[in-house]
Formats: sequence, structure tokens, C-alpha cells
Amino acid sequence: MTTGTTLDDFTDRYARRMRGMAASEIRALFSVANRPEVVSLAGGSPYVAALPLDAVGAMLGELGSVHGATTLQYGIGQGDATLRERICDLMTLSGIDISNGASPDDVVVTVGGQQAIDLISRVFLDPGDVVLAEGPSYVGALGVFQAAEADVVHVPMDDHGLIPTALSEAIAAVAAAGKRAKFLYTVPAHQNPAGVTLPAKRRDEILAICQSAGLLIVEDDPYGLLGFDGEDASNGHVDNGNASNGNVGDGRPLAAFRSRSHDGVIYVSTFSKTFAPGLRVGWILAPHAVREKLVIASEAQILCPSAFAQAAVATYLGEMPWRQQLKTFREVYRERRDVALGALRDLMPVGTRWTVPSGGFYIWLTLPDGLHSKDMLPRAIAERVAYVPGTGFYADGAGGAHLRLCYSFPPPDRIREGVRRLAAVIEQEMAVRSVFGVAATASNETTVNWTPDDRSSRGFRAADTPGPETP
Amino acid sequence: MTTGTTLDDFTDRYARRMRGMAASEIRALFSVANRPEVVSLAGGSPYVAALPLDAVGAMLGELGSVHGATTLQYGIGQGDATLRERICDLMTLSGIDISNGASPDDVVVTVGGQQAIDLISRVFLDPGDVVLAEGPSYVGALGVFQAAEADVVHVPMDDHGLIPTALSEAIAAVAAAGKRAKFLYTVPAHQNPAGVTLPAKRRDEILAICQSAGLLIVEDDPYGLLGFDGEDASNGHVDNGNASNGNVGDGRPLAAFRSRSHDGVIYVSTFSKTFAPGLRVGWILAPHAVREKLVIASEAQILCPSAFAQAAVATYLGEMPWRQQLKTFREVYRERRDVALGALRDLMPVGTRWTVPSGGFYIWLTLPDGLHSKDMLPRAIAERVAYVPGTGFYADGAGGAHLRLCYSFPPPDRIREGVRRLAAVIEQEMAVRSVFGVAATASNETTVNWTPDDRSSRGFRAADTPGPETP
Repeated sequence: MTTGTTLDDFTDRYARRMRGMAASEIRALFSVANRPEVVSLAGGSPYVAALPLDAVGAMLGELGSVHGATTLQYGIGQGDATLRERICDLMTLSGIDISNGASPDDVVVTVGGQQAIDLISRVFLDPGDVVLAEGPSYVGALGVFQAAEADVVHVPMDDHGLIPTALSEAIAAVAAAGKRAKFLYTVPAHQNPAGVTLPAKRRDEILAICQSAGLLIVEDDPYGLLGFDGEDASNGHVDNGNASNGNVGDGRPLAAFRSRSHDGVIYVSTFSKTFAPGLRVGWILAPHAVREKLVIASEAQILCPSAFAQAAVATYLGEMPWRQQLKTFREVYRERRDVALGALRDLMPVGTRWTVPSGGFYIWLTLPDGLHSKDMLPRAIAERVAYVPGTGFYADGAGGAHLRLCYSFPPPDRIREGVRRLAAVIEQEMAVRSVFGVAATASNETTVNWTPDDRSSRGFRAADTPGPETP
Repeated sequence: MTTGTTLDDFTDRYARRMRGMAASEIRALFSVANRPEVVSLAGGSPYVAALPLDAVGAMLGELGSVHGATTLQYGIGQGDATLRERICDLMTLSGIDISNGASPDDVVVTVGGQQAIDLISRVFLDPGDVVLAEGPSYVGALGVFQAAEADVVHVPMDDHGLIPTALSEAIAAVAAAGKRAKFLYTVPAHQNPAGVTLPAKRRDEILAICQSAGLLIVEDDPYGLLGFDGEDASNGHVDNGNASNGNVGDGRPLAAFRSRSHDGVIYVSTFSKTFAPGLRVGWILAPHAVREKLVIASEAQILCPSAFAQAAVATYLGEMPWRQQLKTFREVYRERRDVALGALRDLMPVGTRWTVPSGGFYIWLTLPDGLHSKDMLPRAIAERVAYVPGTGFYADGAGGAHLRLCYSFPPPDRIREGVRRLAAVIEQEMAVRSVFGVAATASNETTVNWTPDDRSSRGFRAADTPGPETP
């Protein structure tokens, strides 16, 4: 069977932006990692089997049989008006409402959060522009910024997320270099992959810094509603931050950046983690003038989002018990987090550290000195366990001392087995290192001021914003 | 209720590509045109109500209830393997098969044809690059090229589509200007909006010209299977062009450019016209090296296409009587075309000319001398009929003498009523002109060598590739 030439006769014709882009070298490994015998702690997949699939299926069937003339047809570029209204209802849980200018007219429905980030980049980024982003940052966003030929400047974090003084320094350094950052990209709640959550006080400080510098904030918030601690996050309560000590508290989301500023923040979120990524529905809430540009950009890119997928989400929000389902998801993920943390405590060699997420999907793990997560990955996959190397979350090659573990998808016994295999791989690596000396590729991290506990569950609360299936 | 500021505080921050992009001035008119009292002959919507909605709904329901753990989950960036296999089966109808190197591995699933064109542009176009395109050309593609900051050079057409000698001249003119065209964008079958179909001999000539010039062909083929004349196009027969006299013949599609060249053609199509645009599923078949770039670009843009929508299309192709449905669609559209042509013959004033489509959705109408389709649109909408002005299909402001009528969506009695209203508007415009002299805005068209018959159905066979909902 002919599968086409593998020579590339087009190299002199590609756009400049493509020249630096190549398939990830770990992509090939992940095609192996998808084999059933491998425990994948790599992907960012929600556990959609926890949905009431019979009821969801009945709803989807009716959208086709009763409403097919509309749901199977074209829609408008901005997205369905009913869905945009329900998105506004949902955002009130994060403190975003009419009092701070949120309106369905300023919402743009997107193909998941990924298209949202891409559209914002299309509207704002010229080649050579600077984007500030947490270090580490969401791999999918870094891919967008790379495709936009933008330069990512990572801003250091600590246990409480982005460090305000470091942000000020980064802004000054960019200005000193004669450039101007177009925006700060941040995942303030349950950051991916580090899993820290910005306390209210820091949000205020960061907002003040950005406003003073004329710097737009792109707030990516897929996980705000998936905190583990305390009560149902969907009960309508919002911690306005006045009494916050920086912790997520009882699990109710902290008020979003967008609730604190109308014109200085572009808010992004998705239904990929709270409902179903297979529908590819996300959204942007933007200042009105920006919203108009985003719609034009989206029409040039996809014409319009799927009317069927939008009807599915709007009906799910309007007619199904989504608040109860959100609670179910949180319970599933909390149990899996606990299993993962217990296995790490029981099985990991001394010198390994990890964060303790307060919500979402991820644990950010720091390897014993001298080990490199990317170098170790082929051996891990040979031992039938997969993770995402920390290097995927930096635009500059840093991150080799870290890796990201995802506990949202595998059942608890598989999580424990995956951690057991990973611990064995790390022990082997340490043994090799003790024989042959320090690994030549050990990274020299300087941007992360982590103080995670060593083999404990105290302190640092961590990562839960999932990344893509394949980084 | 606060709806956000309407002032644009971000004008100095937008990417350069956005500065020339503004919401279409006719967009506001179309929001009026969507009122039920208006007969819209503007949009490019298929008549999805002709689908067996009960059966489609049952299929969609089962995809959620039985297969939800997969269909509601993330997929891979390139698209589902089963769907890619069925797409290859479908393409054999257009002469694209294993014998010319077509393989599921070289297919990329996209968010409709629009994302397909956008991805190709992302991979190939730098600002200032030249794209050759038919004049007139698909409005959605022109939007992509504008967003890519490319320069579109229109190549004249006649009754048989793109004129080979004109293509040679355009290539030479671009070279003489010190530039290089990155590709030729063409809709060879039932071109949108002109509706002509390139005969086999011209396809060979054009391919030879492009190969000689090292010019890639981007073949956009949403309508090849929607020809009206003769037998069922889905019966597996393909006219290989050897015996063709340039007509579509019995309705079976002419062999695609892609069937004539493996490495020189990127083939694009969509299920938006043959199944359901609301699912947003299209595809690209590209040379292998290009396919790899397209997948990377798509992952940066949308992460992955909808698993649910892909499962819906794959199941539709694998388990439902889609060949019979294609025949039903063709019969519906043929009837509506006949109604539209009959109404035009009965009602249009002398001096109005139009094309006679042999498939698909559209009629390309030429106004009596001195009238301008864009200037006339507000008056048409006031008379409760909408169309797309010809100016939408040119990157350079030409096209004012023409307009596009779409007959695919309104029921036959509404089509006739819409044509009646449009004829009255044209007559009013002619009367005004006879009193006040030649309209100041009359366009001076030089690029289109149309020879459509005046008020007749002879000769020129025309347009059926629909454009977007709002141009």
C-alpha cells in the first residue's frame, strides 16, 4: 500500500512560522504509551465514563431527531445565543457577572480552550512579540505562542503561584530589551502543570502591576470549578477573596481575575474538563472591541463552531443536573488524587518530591538530583508507565528535573501500579547514576522557587489543569 | 444591563494582520436578512431537513449512550483512523485512490473545509506571499488569505472555468513582480460562486502549467458529488476524463486534480454539504511531509477535532444509506434550481443574465448595465429578499456587477417569491437609473470573460459551491 512520499519537497515553500515546528520527539513514544499494557499518567483526559451516559445519549439523540434541522445546520461565528447566556450563568460561580460587565454579547464560543488561546494570539501577536507566562506553563498554550512566532518569557512561581515581584522584574526586563509584552498568560486556579492557585491578595497585586504596565491578562480557567476541599463549588457561593489566606479554602472557587477587572482581562474557559472534551466547546469572555476581532478571526478559521456540540452543552446546562455531576467529578478526582499521593508516599525513593493538588488532575513531581525526566521517558515506557516530561511546559528547554503525573483517568489500582513502576524506574536511574556519576543532561533549573515537601503531603498545593492528550 | 465598552482601547496592541480586518459592512444587513419575512437567497446552507432525522438522531444517541466513554473524550490531532479510512473510500468516487497514492495516513480531519483552508495557509503563507485564485472565488477562502496577509491575484475564468493561458500569464506577472505564488486555490467542480466546472482537458493543462512553474494546487472540492445530471454519482463510476468533452456529462464527478497528481495537489473537502454542516467535519489529503505539518498546525489551533462529530460521520458512512441520501439531496437541489431558473426566466427584466448550474447550490447573476449589487443590497433587504453581492468574491473590490443567489435552502415557493422581489428591486433600480443617469458606482469589470446567455438556459453551466452563512 502506498502511503505517500516521506521526502519533503516543500521545504522552501513553508511559511516561516513552520520552520521551527516539528513533531514532538516524544510523540512517537506516546503512540507506544497508548498500548493497554502501559499505565498512562501522561494525558489530561477527564473521566467521562462518570457521566450519566444513558441520559446524555438520550439528550444527544433528541437533539438530532427533534432539533436536527437546526443542530445539524450552520450556526453563527460568535456562537449560539442560548449557550452564551448559560455560559454567563456558569461564570457567576467564579464571581463574573453583570456587576462587572459580563454579558452574553461579549462571549465567543470556541473549539475548546485551545482555539480560544489561538484566537487571542491571532488577534494580538505579531512575530517577535513577547508573551509572559508562568514557568512552567500549559503545553498547549506554549504551542500556540510558538506557532505565532512569539517569544515566551517565563515568570517564576512559588507555592502560591506567580510571584508578583518577579512579574514586575520580567516586565521591566522586557521593556529594557526594547520590547513590549502583549499579555500575561496565566492559569490562576490549579495551574497546569504546577498546580498552585493564586491567592486573592496576589491576584490583586498582579492585577495592579498589569494595569500599571498596560499589560493585558489572559486568564485561562478550565479548573476553577474542580477544587476538592469542602463544599460543592457549584452552590453559587464565591469567595470574594476578602478573607482568603491564599488557600482555596472550602473548595469554592476564588473570584477570577475577570471579576476584578472588566477591560484588563480576557477570560478563557472550556467544558472539556467539566463535561466532555469530545464535543470541543470552550469560550472567551472579552472586552467588547476585542470580542469583535475574535469573531472575525474565528470566522476566518472555522466559519462557526458546531451547532450540534453547542446545543449539547446548552441542553446539558439547561436541563441536566450538572451541579450534581460536577460534585461527582470532584469526588472521583479527589479519590484518585488520594490514591496517587498514597502510592507516592509508599513507593517513591528518597529525594523525590511532589506537589499536593487541591483540585483537578495533576501532580508535579521533582526527580532526585541529577535525573532528567525526558531522558528517562523511554525507559519508563519500556517499564509500561508514561508521564509528561517537565520540559514540555517550558519554552526554553528548562523543566528536566520535573515531570507531570495525571491521575484523572486511570482507575485507582492502575494509578498505584503506575506509580510503582515509575518508582522502580527512578530507582534504576539513581542506581545507574551512582555507578556512572552525574547524568550529563541534568538540567540547571533557576526559575522555579519550589518548596514542595519531601515525601509528605504538607505544604505546597498543586497542579490540576490538564494538558493535551499528546504534548 | 452592562454590555461592555464599545470604545476600543486595544488598537495599538492588535497584531498587524487584524488592522485591515473589520466586520463586513453587510454583516449588519444580514442580521436583518435572517428575519422570517425576508427570503434569503444569500447563505450556503444545505437542506438538512431532507436527512432521515429520526435515524440520524438514533445513531447520535447511541454514540453517546453506548460509546460515550470514547466519543465524548479527546481524540488525536490528525483525526480518527476509522473515519480517515472511510474518507478514503469516499474519495474513490472522485478518482482518488491507492493507485495515485491516497492513504488514510495522509488524511487530516478538520473543523469543516474552512479550517482545512486555514491550516494550509498557516503552513504555507507568510505575509506578502501571493495566492492565485479564480476570479470570483469562495468568500471564506478569501477571508483566510486576508487573515494570512497574503496577496490574492485573481485569474480570469470563462464558461469552462479557469483559463489556462490566463493562469500562465498570472504566474509570469507574479514572477515579473519579483514574487512567487505559493499555490493556486481552485474549486474545480461547480465553482463557488461562478459555478463552472473545469473540463478534464483543462485540468490536464492547468496541472501541467502548475507543475512546470512549481506551483502547488489547493483543490477545494465540496460539491463534486452534488452534480444534477444523469445517474447517481455515488455508484462508484468515475469519469477518468479520457472521453470527456468538458461537460460534467451524466453527473458522475470528473476525476479530481488529486487523482492526476500525487505530490502537486493538496485536496480539501467537507461533509458540510453532503451530510451536516452542524458537525463541522472536513478533511485534507496532502503529500506526507505536508500532512505532518498540517497536524502540528491543527494541534496548535484546536488540539484535536471533535471525537463525537467524527464518530457521527464515520458511523453515517459505515452504517447508514448515504449513497441513497446523496441522491435525495441531488434531487432536492435540482428541483430548486429548476424553480429558481424558471422564476428568473419569467420575472427578470431584460438585461439581466445568469448562469445555469449543473449541480450544487448557486446561480451567479449579472445585473443590467450600471447597477451595482452591493449598493442595491439595502434596498433589496427592504423589499425582503437577500443575496450576496459579487464584491464578496473578489479580494480587489471587483464583482459589483454580479450577485450570488442560493436556492438550496428555501422551499420552492419561497425561491420563486424571492426572485419576484429581486426582479422588482432591479426594475426599480433601472427606473431610477433611467431618470438620474448611470449610477456613479457602476463597476468596471475586466477580469471575467463570461458569456452567459441572456434570459435563457442555454450555454454556460454554473455555480454551486456555497459560501458561509454570512459572507
